[in-house]
Amino acid sequence: MPNISIRGKKMPQSPIRKLAPFAEIAIRKGLKVYHLNIGQPDIKSPEKAIEAIKNINLDVIAYGPSEGNKSYRKKLASFFRRQHVNVDTKDIMITTGGSEALLFAMGSIMDPGDEVIIPEPFYANYSAFSEESGAKVVPVTSSFEDGFALPSIEMFENLITPRTKAILICNPSNPTGNLYSEQEISQLGELAKRHDLFLIADEVYREFIYNPEDIHYSVMNLVGLEQNVIMIDSVSKRYSMCGARIGCMVTKNKEVIATAMKFAQARLCPPTIEQIACEAAIDTPKSYFTKTIKEYKIRRDTLISELLKIEGIEVTLPKAAFYCIVQLPVKDTDHFAKWLLKNYELEGETVMIAPAAGFYSTPGMGKNQVRMAYVLKKEELVRSVHILKEALKVYKAIKYKKPMLID
Amino acid sequence: MPNISIRGKKMPQSPIRKLAPFAEIAIRKGLKVYHLNIGQPDIKSPEKAIEAIKNINLDVIAYGPSEGNKSYRKKLASFFRRQHVNVDTKDIMITTGGSEALLFAMGSIMDPGDEVIIPEPFYANYSAFSEESGAKVVPVTSSFEDGFALPSIEMFENLITPRTKAILICNPSNPTGNLYSEQEISQLGELAKRHDLFLIADEVYREFIYNPEDIHYSVMNLVGLEQNVIMIDSVSKRYSMCGARIGCMVTKNKEVIATAMKFAQARLCPPTIEQIACEAAIDTPKSYFTKTIKEYKIRRDTLISELLKIEGIEVTLPKAAFYCIVQLPVKDTDHFAKWLLKNYELEGETVMIAPAAGFYSTPGMGKNQVRMAYVLKKEELVRSVHILKEALKVYKAIKYKKPMLID
Repeated sequence: MPNISIRGKKMPQSPIRKLAPFAEIAIRKGLKVYHLNIGQPDIKSPEKAIEAIKNINLDVIAYGPSEGNKSYRKKLASFFRRQHVNVDTKDIMITTGGSEALLFAMGSIMDPGDEVIIPEPFYANYSAFSEESGAKVVPVTSSFEDGFALPSIEMFENLITPRTKAILICNPSNPTGNLYSEQEISQLGELAKRHDLFLIADEVYREFIYNPEDIHYSVMNLVGLEQNVIMIDSVSKRYSMCGARIGCMVTKNKEVIATAMKFAQARLCPPTIEQIACEAAIDTPKSYFTKTIKEYKIRRDTLISELLKIEGIEVTLPKAAFYCIVQLPVKDTDHFAKWLLKNYELEGETVMIAPAAGFYSTPGMGKNQVRMAYVLKKEELVRSVHILKEALKVYKAIKYKKPMLID
Repeated sequence: MPNISIRGKKMPQSPIRKLAPFAEIAIRKGLKVYHLNIGQPDIKSPEKAIEAIKNINLDVIAYGPSEGNKSYRKKLASFFRRQHVNVDTKDIMITTGGSEALLFAMGSIMDPGDEVIIPEPFYANYSAFSEESGAKVVPVTSSFEDGFALPSIEMFENLITPRTKAILICNPSNPTGNLYSEQEISQLGELAKRHDLFLIADEVYREFIYNPEDIHYSVMNLVGLEQNVIMIDSVSKRYSMCGARIGCMVTKNKEVIATAMKFAQARLCPPTIEQIACEAAIDTPKSYFTKTIKEYKIRRDTLISELLKIEGIEVTLPKAAFYCIVQLPVKDTDHFAKWLLKNYELEGETVMIAPAAGFYSTPGMGKNQVRMAYVLKKEELVRSVHILKEALKVYKAIKYKKPMLID
C-alpha cells in the first residue's frame, strides 16, 4: 500500500471541526448539541441574495472569468469605497471563500521554508494553509491578560529572519474578538515597509464591531504600503452566507494579482450561482446590519455575563467579531470537549466547544482555553452555559484522575 | 517592494485561458469570437438542477459538512453503482470542482520533489496543480500518429524512480479525445501495484463516448488495487454545469480519505447551493444524455470533416470527451492563436484556439498543434473552421517572416 505524504500527516486537524464525528455520535444517540464551536450564524441571509438565487435566469450554469464576474467585482469595489477602504475593481480577485484567497496569497508570495509571523492565538486554518503552501508559521504570542492586544513591535521585529516573507493578522480577530487600533495597524505597516515584508490582513469581520466609538482601520488605507498589503475578505459572515464560499483577495500589487491569477485559472472560476447571490447581497439595506449587530451585541453580553457567573471561568469582553477565548478550570480542554460529547448530557443536551490549543502554534499554549462563538440565540446561549456549568461540576468531581472517555 | 514567490513565477499560465485578455480586446473592438479554446458546452444544464436552485428553501446559506452533504454523497454513490463503478458513500469526498479533488489527492499523497508520471499531452492544469503541490511532472509522450494511445508499459516503467509516487491519467482524455481500453487500464493497474504507486484517474468525461461498442472502464473496478486507486470526478461536463464547481475525490483508501479530510476541513465546505443543484441533477432522465451525446457526435463529425478539407491540417477522429488535437501548417500555434485574436478578422469574426504546447510538459512538443473543443453548435463549428481556413491563407501569405503582432 503506497504511503500518504509527510505533508498530509503534518496537516493539522481543524480544532473547530475535528470533534464533528463525536458530535454526530451524540446526535445519533438522540442528544441535542449546542454548537459553541463554530461561527455558523443563525442570522438569515439577506432577502436580496435568496431572491437572486430563486430568480436566476440561466439555461447553462457556465464557467465565469477566473478572477470572478466583472459586474460583481465592480459593485464590490464600490461597496468597499463606501466603507472608506481604498479599492478599485482591478485590485479584486474573487475567490472560493476567504480560504482560497489566503491560499492564493500564500502561494503567490511564499516558497517552501519561507516564514510568516502571526500573532497567536490565530484562526486555526492559517496553520493548515501554511502547511499546504510549505510556509513556516512563526507565532508571536498575545496574552489573555492583555485582552489579546497586538504584541509589541519589538516582539515582531525579534522574530524577523532572512526567510520572513509576511506578517498575517486577522482584524477583527477570530478567535479573540480583539480589534486593532489605527495606531497598531500603522506600526505594523511601518515594520512591514522597513523589512520589505508583505502584510496580509484577514478583515472578514470588519462589520462586527460593538462599541460605536471603535472604528475598523483597513490595511488598504496604509499610505506608501500599497505594494506590501494584501487584504482577505469574504461574504460568509457579513451576509450570513458561509455556505456560499465566496471571498476575495484584494491588493494594489499588480505582480501579486497576476501571479494569483495563475492559481485562479488553474481552478477555472469561483461558483457561478453564488456569485450572483453575492452581487445581489451588496444591495442589502443598512438596517440589516444595524439589526444583526444589535443582535450579536446582546448575544455577546449574554454569553460573557453568563460565563462570568461560573466559578473558575475567565473571559474578557470581546470588542468585535463573534468569538471569545474562555479560560476553563480544566487542565486539558481537548479532553473536556470530547468528554462533553461522548460522556455527558444534561436532560438530553450537551455542548460542543473548540479547544483553543489548535489556535496556537506554540506547543502547550492554550490548553486550558476554548474558543466560543456567540452565534446562537440568547436563550440557547443561556442554556449552553448552564449545561457547561453543570458539566464542569461533574467533570471536576471525578477527582484525582482524568475522567475516562467512554466509547 | 517584496518579491513574489519562485513557485508563483514557475506556475504555468493556462493555455486555455491565457489568451483571454486578447479575446476581450477583440470583443471590445466589436469582433465576434468563436471559442474553440475552452470546453464550455452550450448544452442546457438539466431542468431538475435549475428547478432545484429556483426552489431552494433556505433562510441561511450555511456551512455544510467538509466532505459534502451526506444526502448528495449517498445519491452519487448509487449513481456510480448504476454505472457499474464500485463506490460506497464513505469513499466519496465532495470537492469544489474536479480541480480541488486533484489538489487534495496530490497534497495527500505527494511531498515536494515527489514525481507523478503523466501521459502527455495532458490537461494543462495538471502542471499547475503539480506546481502548487511541489510535485514534479514526469511526462511520457503519446503520439499524434498513434491517435494518442497509451504509451507502452515499458515506457512508463523506464521513468519510475525512488521518488515516483503516482501515475495520473485522464480517461477519456482531455485534450486528445482518446479512450483507454480495459486492457490498458489493467496493465497500468498491474504496474502501479508492482511499484506500490498510486494510480489517479480523472474520469470526468466518462459519459461522452461515441461508438456504441466502446465502453468506459473505471480504475475503481481494478480488483486488488483498492488501496492504490483515486478517481477524480466532476459534474461540470456531465450536466453542463461547469460553473457549479462541484466535483469529488473517490477512493477506498481510508488513509487518503482521512488525510484529504484535513485539507477539506481547512477550506470548510464545498458550495451549498450548487450541491443542492447537483443532488437534484442526478435524477436527470437518461434521454438527456442520449440527446447530448448524439449532439456531440454530430459536432465531432462536423468539426473533423470540415478540418480535413483544409490542406495541411491533420487530425484523427476522437473516440470520446469533446476535444481533439489538431496539427496546423504553422510553426508556432501560440503566435498564430494570438495573431488570430489581435490581427485577423473575417467579416467581423475570428476564432480562439488553445495552443497545444501548454498541454505538453516536454519543451518544444506540440508547437504545431492546438486543442479544439467541439462544444459549439454545428453551424458555428462550420463557420469557425471556415474562418480558420481563410486565416491560414493570410497567415501563410506573409512569407519568409513571422507575421508581426499589431497592438
